Amino acid sequence: MSFYAAPVAKLIEEFEKLPGIGHKTAQRLAFHVLNLPYEKAESLANAIREAKAKTRYCSVCSNLTETDPCSICSSSSRDSSVICVVEDPRDVVAMERTREFKGLYHVLHGAISPMEGIGPEDIKIKELLARLKDGSVKEIILATNPNIEGEATAMYISKLLKPLGIKATRIAHGIPVGGDLEYADEVTLAKALEGRREI
Amino acid sequence: MSFYAAPVAKLIEEFEKLPGIGHKTAQRLAFHVLNLPYEKAESLANAIREAKAKTRYCSVCSNLTETDPCSICSSSSRDSSVICVVEDPRDVVAMERTREFKGLYHVLHGAISPMEGIGPEDIKIKELLARLKDGSVKEIILATNPNIEGEATAMYISKLLKPLGIKATRIAHGIPVGGDLEYADEVTLAKALEGRREI
Repeated sequence: MSFYAAPVAKLIEEFEKLPGIGHKTAQRLAFHVLNLPYEKAESLANAIREAKAKTRYCSVCSNLTETDPCSICSSSSRDSSVICVVEDPRDVVAMERTREFKGLYHVLHGAISPMEGIGPEDIKIKELLARLKDGSVKEIILATNPNIEGEATAMYISKLLKPLGIKATRIAHGIPVGGDLEYADEVTLAKALEGRREI
Repeated sequence: MSFYAAPVAKLIEEFEKLPGIGHKTAQRLAFHVLNLPYEKAESLANAIREAKAKTRYCSVCSNLTETDPCSICSSSSRDSSVICVVEDPRDVVAMERTREFKGLYHVLHGAISPMEGIGPEDIKIKELLARLKDGSVKEIILATNPNIEGEATAMYISKLLKPLGIKATRIAHGIPVGGDLEYADEVTLAKALEGRREI
């Protein structure tokens, strides 16, 4: 039984469904919203509705976008011969922030994970292969996460690319910039050694 | 500059305005919402809108309510000779959870705090005094928080009640149930000693 007025209880319940939000935080957020001026609460509700209503997945790269194809896929200044494959739309943002990559993206929306029952057909791999048919793509950079699922996914895709004669590359593993050798785990350190380059 | 589609950036920005939600958490929440089925996102947006639109403050006790007067103020089974004064609607919920208190409430919506420029006229003290005019109230339980502001508020109200001949009581301070004497701070322990009772 809840001692809150029904709409308050409902709001707390809705906030609790969000990831990482427990009951106390949900309560705090709900009371914050109730104390907001009407327009501000409305603005939050609208942002939720509009983000959901106005964004879709790009039919080319599967990134989140307002326009289809997305601004990156439809840009004439990007190098369409290179595609960087990532797991998540957030990874696109992370890559864009480096301002180093001028090619296109492909968002898989996940990684192969037999443990969670996610197979190659559950992520956007066939959509990636479809983009390679016209022969204009020369390189695929596999930028999936450096964990078991990400590595397996990169390996899987690279094997599909071999017969097509398209170069598959994997982003480098190593010590993070500003990181400390002493505290690096041995796998990362081994990868960093393996990937050493002449300077 | 944001690398996100505009509605996504807007949603992240709105989430960031919530208390205790930083940029990374706001991003995580926004992407969670974007991955929700349409009805679920709609349901969250509606809960925000409805909680704000359908709740108001009870004209008697100033608690959050859907109906005015609230269900507690309009209940015939509550003892209307006792009013428990709290700072916040959440405190009413905390008190109700004990199932021990059968009187009415009065929500001050804050506490006197000269440091933050909150004076007696900024919280619902005059509304409390108005409820005492008909002489039916015999006791006021001051259940403001046991900190400087809460104590000052309790003291201030108790002084106003003296000339009216209404009993003012303050909730007990002491060691929390399940707490450990060893780790209790000395002020709490002193209060616990002071409030000792014969058993």
